[in-house]
Amino acid sequence: MTVLLYDNPFSGNCYKVRLIFNLLGIEHERREVSVLDRADRVEKLGGLSPALTIPAVVLEDGRPLAESNAIVWHFADGSAYLPDDPYERAQVLQWMFFEQYKHEPAIAVLRFWVAIGGGPPPEMNVEAMRADGHFALKVMERHLRDHEFFVGERFTIADIALYAYTHVAPEGGFELEPYPAVGEWLERVAAQPGIVPIDA
Amino acid sequence: MTVLLYDNPFSGNCYKVRLIFNLLGIEHERREVSVLDRADRVEKLGGLSPALTIPAVVLEDGRPLAESNAIVWHFADGSAYLPDDPYERAQVLQWMFFEQYKHEPAIAVLRFWVAIGGGPPPEMNVEAMRADGHFALKVMERHLRDHEFFVGERFTIADIALYAYTHVAPEGGFELEPYPAVGEWLERVAAQPGIVPIDA
Repeated sequence: MTVLLYDNPFSGNCYKVRLIFNLLGIEHERREVSVLDRADRVEKLGGLSPALTIPAVVLEDGRPLAESNAIVWHFADGSAYLPDDPYERAQVLQWMFFEQYKHEPAIAVLRFWVAIGGGPPPEMNVEAMRADGHFALKVMERHLRDHEFFVGERFTIADIALYAYTHVAPEGGFELEPYPAVGEWLERVAAQPGIVPIDA
Repeated sequence: MTVLLYDNPFSGNCYKVRLIFNLLGIEHERREVSVLDRADRVEKLGGLSPALTIPAVVLEDGRPLAESNAIVWHFADGSAYLPDDPYERAQVLQWMFFEQYKHEPAIAVLRFWVAIGGGPPPEMNVEAMRADGHFALKVMERHLRDHEFFVGERFTIADIALYAYTHVAPEGGFELEPYPAVGEWLERVAAQPGIVPIDA
């Protein structure tokens, strides 16, 4: 059985999985799931993804797995994109949890509403989310001033996790000019062999 | 050098680390950080925790690590609380990312404002957070109807991550009666040898 990826081309979380699949040459079949109409989520993702989120994958042996960073970790383990050293592995997780807690909820969510959702809903506190997103970018900038990549001075899945929504942050109204070290890191990541565009 | 834990007794994220330290008998020194007055965060946590969050630890060799689930993973690896099987390890991560993305931002944040913050600030969308928290509890309930624990039918750090804020969810106004499987799982976790109360 080929790996199945429940995917959406717009989603940065799905892009993380498409990236690691491309980097590792993992053959897979994509099943597109809408990010606008969620009416078929239980039908499509029930039993595969506990919170009905995408990406979700069905492995070659038929077992399901959800949560972008868990999927990326699973496939990258044993490859050059996930270090062997226990402390570096913990640092990779540190940045991946930072990404899901502090970065994605502001930067990805605003991009969604600005770029395809027809504007943020009135009850959304855009100002607070804008501030949260800039805080996350500042945290990245501070780290990248002294480091080429997030962990171990080489390209790892911590960079993949953070690249996914940072490189399209301007689509959500986050200008990246105030973050020159982030800008240089984005170029370093984009120059890695095997990096494909988000809509590839 | 003893492990240093930057900690707050009220924080469920810090509690995860205190739990794994107690379960594994890891000697450590605690440095209390306020969750109300954040003025000294840069001074106390700069260089240790990129987003200035607690818990943060300084390992025996002096290297820092932040993000509760990354810290718990790091210490648990090689113990009975983190499986060896690659698929089970990915499932542990799946539930830990679910916890930080869907559970903590609603259930922990409302508990904070209700129980010690003097009530939610006016700009906070309490209704939406309440719905998000109940969604997370429903996801857990659905899984626990057919499972004793979150991964591999035994107690792992996935349970620790989810126990931390679920067992105190009522302090934030989340009644757990509608979630009987969650209630039974809470009792199973509390009955594990070495589980200490959150304020221990």
